Amino acid sequence: MEQALSKVLPEPAGPQADILEAMRYAVLGGGKRLRPFLLIETARMLGGADEGAVLAACALECVHVYSLIHDDLPCMDDDDLRRGKPTVHKVYDEAMAVLCGDALLTLAFEILARPEIHVDVNIRLKLLSNLAVASGTQGMIGGQVMDIYAPNYSSIQKQDEALITQLQALKTGALIQYAVQSGGHLAGASEVDLQNLRVYADALGLAFQIRDDILDAEGDAQEMGKAAGKDAGLGKATFVSIHGLEGAKQKAAILGEQAKAALAVYGAKADILCSTVDFVLNRKK
Amino acid sequence: MEQALSKVLPEPAGPQADILEAMRYAVLGGGKRLRPFLLIETARMLGGADEGAVLAACALECVHVYSLIHDDLPCMDDDDLRRGKPTVHKVYDEAMAVLCGDALLTLAFEILARPEIHVDVNIRLKLLSNLAVASGTQGMIGGQVMDIYAPNYSSIQKQDEALITQLQALKTGALIQYAVQSGGHLAGASEVDLQNLRVYADALGLAFQIRDDILDAEGDAQEMGKAAGKDAGLGKATFVSIHGLEGAKQKAAILGEQAKAALAVYGAKADILCSTVDFVLNRKK
Repeated sequence: MEQALSKVLPEPAGPQADILEAMRYAVLGGGKRLRPFLLIETARMLGGADEGAVLAACALECVHVYSLIHDDLPCMDDDDLRRGKPTVHKVYDEAMAVLCGDALLTLAFEILARPEIHVDVNIRLKLLSNLAVASGTQGMIGGQVMDIYAPNYSSIQKQDEALITQLQALKTGALIQYAVQSGGHLAGASEVDLQNLRVYADALGLAFQIRDDILDAEGDAQEMGKAAGKDAGLGKATFVSIHGLEGAKQKAAILGEQAKAALAVYGAKADILCSTVDFVLNRKK
Repeated sequence: MEQALSKVLPEPAGPQADILEAMRYAVLGGGKRLRPFLLIETARMLGGADEGAVLAACALECVHVYSLIHDDLPCMDDDDLRRGKPTVHKVYDEAMAVLCGDALLTLAFEILARPEIHVDVNIRLKLLSNLAVASGTQGMIGGQVMDIYAPNYSSIQKQDEALITQLQALKTGALIQYAVQSGGHLAGASEVDLQNLRVYADALGLAFQIRDDILDAEGDAQEMGKAAGKDAGLGKATFVSIHGLEGAKQKAAILGEQAKAALAVYGAKADILCSTVDFVLNRKK
């Protein structure tokens, strides 16, 4: 992924050298690359070719990084640290951070239109259209809006849980779902495959978020590469504030089992996607 | 356009109602709609169907409005007034303005993937890919980066003019070129048609920008619906600062003639696109 990302990001040169450099700074040299990994490994599980999957994974990571850059802005989460490095608006400035995010989002769509993604133009169009939906107001941006404008959830815990589950299904779940579905589309997945992948990604996405809440509650900033304890500090409802640390861990473990069960039908071919569940449940950052 | 835009923008409802409302506020009820007009009228001149052209024009206008919202942010041009109304970050806040722009850019790509754009998926992909290039670092964003980070051009006028011509070819020219080319693609334009349209759009785009500089120098904010005299106040080189008011008007008039000449071969069918040149040269806002 590091090599592939370096290749799709334009080399800094000419009057646009600064923003091209900022894009490379933001994208390269950090991050778990979970979404790209899921896309590529899903395609592999179903017998798809690597070339198109790796390129589509680059586009997806560009969208993910754009969302991080904008989320970190002073007017949003105001974070100074991301992936263990100063955030883009700290290294450059706010204008550059806005434009750098815009440029990465735009680049993602340009990448997905390339013939190397898939020989069938209908598949390329599907990946493009689905990315727009998954990252738009019905997906990631919708989740971010909920997160920013309704941070102080009601004190009725049941409502809180429904709300944060919906919020996270949009904010992080939509792109995780997109990763897995796109890997499926590239590999010519059947409707049954796509449905199995849907169940897997829904459970994995929620487990991912619960783990995030656990890390936010007990992690330390240095290990995570970003600020810790922010959500509790803001009085936000999280899966930990609702279920407690142990309850949240239990809930994540159950979701992990559900995710693996959804892929049981693929036997050993699903080993990597199943071990990814363990990675998500045990990750330290 | 107003009706078509209202239709493609989702109705405000649910937890995302605020951002959907902000998107409608930003897009509807203002603006010259020059880029949509150019796209639709180019398609008409070459015998293309209206439905796809109007929808593609909606996508293009979403990208234009996203760029205005982000350009108006305090960290960029810091404008309070746009199209005669308070800017999005003034009515809502900065976070909403960033997200609202992001959402409109994303929506544009979703729209262009729709079957209603054109029955031929290759044409839809071409419009998608070209939009990403025209609005990215090689296009609009590239021009905005130049505008923000090199506002105090050198005192050597010849260099200044080459620089601002390049800057404007990217910042405003790329989307104007995109409008006309897309109208051509939707109508099945030949290579010769596309080349004629290229010359027309290049000349029109530059004339548009020179007129902008003239309006900025002599216009008043109330008539324009946005701040006036900003560029001179910032010490920016403009076509007016280089050529003077009369010189700039002459240059714009010559470009206008070039634009019309490029379409002479289409005879009366080009009347509307030719009168658009006069509109651009004489516009008050």
